Amino acid sequence: MILTVTLNTALDITYRVRGLRPHASHRVTEVLERPGGKGLNVARVLAALGHRVTATGFAGGVTGRALQDQLTGTAGVVDALVPVAGTSRRTIAVVDTATGATTHLNEPGPAIAPAEWSAFREAYEDLLRSCSAVALCGSLPPGVPVGAYAGLVRTARSAQVPVLLDTSGEPLRRGVAARPDIVKPNAVELAELTGAHEPAQATRDARRRGAHAVVASLGAEGLLARTPEGHWRASPPRPVRGNPAGAGDSAVAGLLSGLVEDLPWPDRLARAVALSTATVLAPVAGEFDRAVYEDLLGKVSVTGEDVAA
Amino acid sequence: MILTVTLNTALDITYRVRGLRPHASHRVTEVLERPGGKGLNVARVLAALGHRVTATGFAGGVTGRALQDQLTGTAGVVDALVPVAGTSRRTIAVVDTATGATTHLNEPGPAIAPAEWSAFREAYEDLLRSCSAVALCGSLPPGVPVGAYAGLVRTARSAQVPVLLDTSGEPLRRGVAARPDIVKPNAVELAELTGAHEPAQATRDARRRGAHAVVASLGAEGLLARTPEGHWRASPPRPVRGNPAGAGDSAVAGLLSGLVEDLPWPDRLARAVALSTATVLAPVAGEFDRAVYEDLLGKVSVTGEDVAA
Repeated sequence: MILTVTLNTALDITYRVRGLRPHASHRVTEVLERPGGKGLNVARVLAALGHRVTATGFAGGVTGRALQDQLTGTAGVVDALVPVAGTSRRTIAVVDTATGATTHLNEPGPAIAPAEWSAFREAYEDLLRSCSAVALCGSLPPGVPVGAYAGLVRTARSAQVPVLLDTSGEPLRRGVAARPDIVKPNAVELAELTGAHEPAQATRDARRRGAHAVVASLGAEGLLARTPEGHWRASPPRPVRGNPAGAGDSAVAGLLSGLVEDLPWPDRLARAVALSTATVLAPVAGEFDRAVYEDLLGKVSVTGEDVAA
Repeated sequence: MILTVTLNTALDITYRVRGLRPHASHRVTEVLERPGGKGLNVARVLAALGHRVTATGFAGGVTGRALQDQLTGTAGVVDALVPVAGTSRRTIAVVDTATGATTHLNEPGPAIAPAEWSAFREAYEDLLRSCSAVALCGSLPPGVPVGAYAGLVRTARSAQVPVLLDTSGEPLRRGVAARPDIVKPNAVELAELTGAHEPAQATRDARRRGAHAVVASLGAEGLLARTPEGHWRASPPRPVRGNPAGAGDSAVAGLLSGLVEDLPWPDRLARAVALSTATVLAPVAGEFDRAVYEDLLGKVSVTGEDVAA
């Protein structure tokens, strides 16, 4: 079983409106809801790839109930979210059907009490015993200490469970120092972590800070990986246009599934790029188009060297 | 007990964001939620005035549960909402804290099944037996026949319960023909109903179409009433600026409370204008400021004639 951690889960709501104008009234023509937060997106993609997944983190209030109801209906995903007194946040994506552009409104997460944070850490330690890999994903809600991911990385390493970290800012900086197996920053997060704007330099710096492997997601250009086994660049066969929401989470699912299947790095990277490209091209934000994924898988270009970096 | 009917209840959500820009991401700094839909707003104001109120209509899904939870916590209001299989709608008001301007996103209501509509009509007939007046408020959700309000007006009249109708378009046109005691259109709704853009002419026309009394809300100019007892204009002592959301619902609560207390029309109108002005001036949209209301009550100007119109 693969474990995904989402401390700041969300109910992701998508509204379709025709022509969004500030200060006007709009009739929403379509409402879509699904469980969100990076780790839940990763869990959904892993399940679609045929893996058994357990999703943990926090959920509370009517929003938490709504997202747990939907999670329970997702085949292959076991709900192990820890209850909290606060109400899980909503995110609203307003898609303007006239232009295709999207406006985002993101609620703050509920404050987590110290006892809730302790309850989570206990649940996490229990879950680690039966899992083959763990992904720690997304931002921290208020009340969770900034060093939270560093602690969770150390616990996973003590349990000898490979751990992937996908976050940003200070939680990433502290988490990297705890020596996770993989970090997957995007270009902005990587530059913020290392101070280096040149990706090759920045991935080297991030490894020096403690990450065993660094896989940087560079948007339409694909992935740049620096690992103990070698360094590679993986790119889609052609640039694509679409909705990038969830593309990074699909890449995480690709990397993690490849890790537990013991694939060589170039195959893991090809899978991650094909999945994230298929996510950008999917008609529903954050889903991936399976036919497109299978078609792309053999066409991703992976170049690099299979040597110690 | 006063009965209010809200067929298209809503969970009204207010977001505060700093600077709303289409196609950007926004952090919501504050989230407020409350039960909405015109009849629930009327119920809340009536309860604040010291009346016992029962609120009926439809509620369903997690949104319905959330709004019923909050309604149960409102002193003086009894929840008699009828359950439906669909999910009650949300409305989102995005307040730009930089400009004070508000952008509205309104979900469509859930489709009402024929059996649900029948269940409502039975509940409504039962509730009429113990009530002193009823307000029928707002739009119709999908699945409810366009002649719904006409039927509900006739049922109230058979039960000898005074009935106020506050809706628009074809439901208003049909409802007026069923001879409600009071209709409270705004200027746009009144012009749409009668084809007349001059309010004095339009209120006369609306009475000819069947309404016993017509009270037109004319925004900052106050109310224009044409009734069997006379015709009056009621205006606030000075024009005010603020958020007009809910001002019409406060006016309905003023009219209805004055009716059950058997106040003369000028006093009912003064109360309605004072309440709606105090709602425009309240810091929270749709609430009313009690001190402002009490101060305004003696200062509303009511002019007109106490004769047969």
